[in-house]
Amino acid sequence: MKKENAIEIVKPHLKKKRFEHTLRVADTAEQLAGIYNESKEKATLAAIFHDYCKYRPLEEMKRCIVSTRTLPKDLLDFHHELWHGPVGSVLVEKEYGIVDRDIRSAIYYHTTGRANMSKLEMIIFLADYIEPGRDFPGVHAVRELAREDLLGACLLASKNTINHLLSKGASIYPDTFHAYNDLTKRVNGGN
Amino acid sequence: MKKENAIEIVKPHLKKKRFEHTLRVADTAEQLAGIYNESKEKATLAAIFHDYCKYRPLEEMKRCIVSTRTLPKDLLDFHHELWHGPVGSVLVEKEYGIVDRDIRSAIYYHTTGRANMSKLEMIIFLADYIEPGRDFPGVHAVRELAREDLLGACLLASKNTINHLLSKGASIYPDTFHAYNDLTKRVNGGN
Repeated sequence: MKKENAIEIVKPHLKKKRFEHTLRVADTAEQLAGIYNESKEKATLAAIFHDYCKYRPLEEMKRCIVSTRTLPKDLLDFHHELWHGPVGSVLVEKEYGIVDRDIRSAIYYHTTGRANMSKLEMIIFLADYIEPGRDFPGVHAVRELAREDLLGACLLASKNTINHLLSKGASIYPDTFHAYNDLTKRVNGGN
Repeated sequence: MKKENAIEIVKPHLKKKRFEHTLRVADTAEQLAGIYNESKEKATLAAIFHDYCKYRPLEEMKRCIVSTRTLPKDLLDFHHELWHGPVGSVLVEKEYGIVDRDIRSAIYYHTTGRANMSKLEMIIFLADYIEPGRDFPGVHAVRELAREDLLGACLLASKNTINHLLSKGASIYPDTFHAYNDLTKRVNGGN
């Protein structure tokens, strides 16, 4: 699928600000793919579709999670903000025939990360976090680090996210912690 | 087993400071048991034995984890500080015939906590954290809360622990965040 087609498909599914965010994530992902020798085509496509299901009705997402064998049911015990990635990874295939596992997996895990993230997964996770429209405590340091250290930048983003959730008293989805633990080990062998 | 016998058994296994800590944890656990209507005998015994295996050689603890069917092998992928609770829960039975599941489980989970902690598990987890010899950032607030809100105090302790581990860049054992998520839900239904 061409970039232009993907953008046309996604546009009506997103509010204006979310669509602009998506375009910035796509640009950022393409830049990161250039730096880290990943396919720019895959990075761009995954980025354009990463929030494809962001505004689906909660009931539709719930039905998708319940009826899709490969989606973990414990998602339903956590905040619905976590549903659109996994649901998106299923519906981009069903509705637009995107079967590429790398792309679908990058869409799936863009909110939480997970253990053993692929390079493409890390690029989308990070691009969503650092795109130039983002402005929250800690983002500047992650943005700087992302230019030269993909793993280190993902680790910092993951740590910031957990800190943020703790400060809100929110629960933390297991994949978020698994991402942190795994990145900690990959970056410094630490335990 | 009588309190005095338990103390005599444990004493030679601990360094002086650790033994004094253990006596303070036992006093604190007994007080908490009084407040929250738990068995003082069980709380005292679990507290006296909670660090029973703290100074076992790493190789012995490793062998115990590998050879005990019920102990999860992923403990070996995390810091050895996490081993003495689970190993202790096995060896207090083998070496002193303590078969009480509540006591053994409180020993097992005293370092990390876990989801669905029993009252006795929470009392030992908390007593170890707040005994009067402890002096680290945040302990005062947990100590105060422990007098009137067992769940809330455990949640605060768990949150502090995760924050501390994040600030050190250390990995976080899954039971630690399962405890946090579960306590979050039990305290405020939050997600």
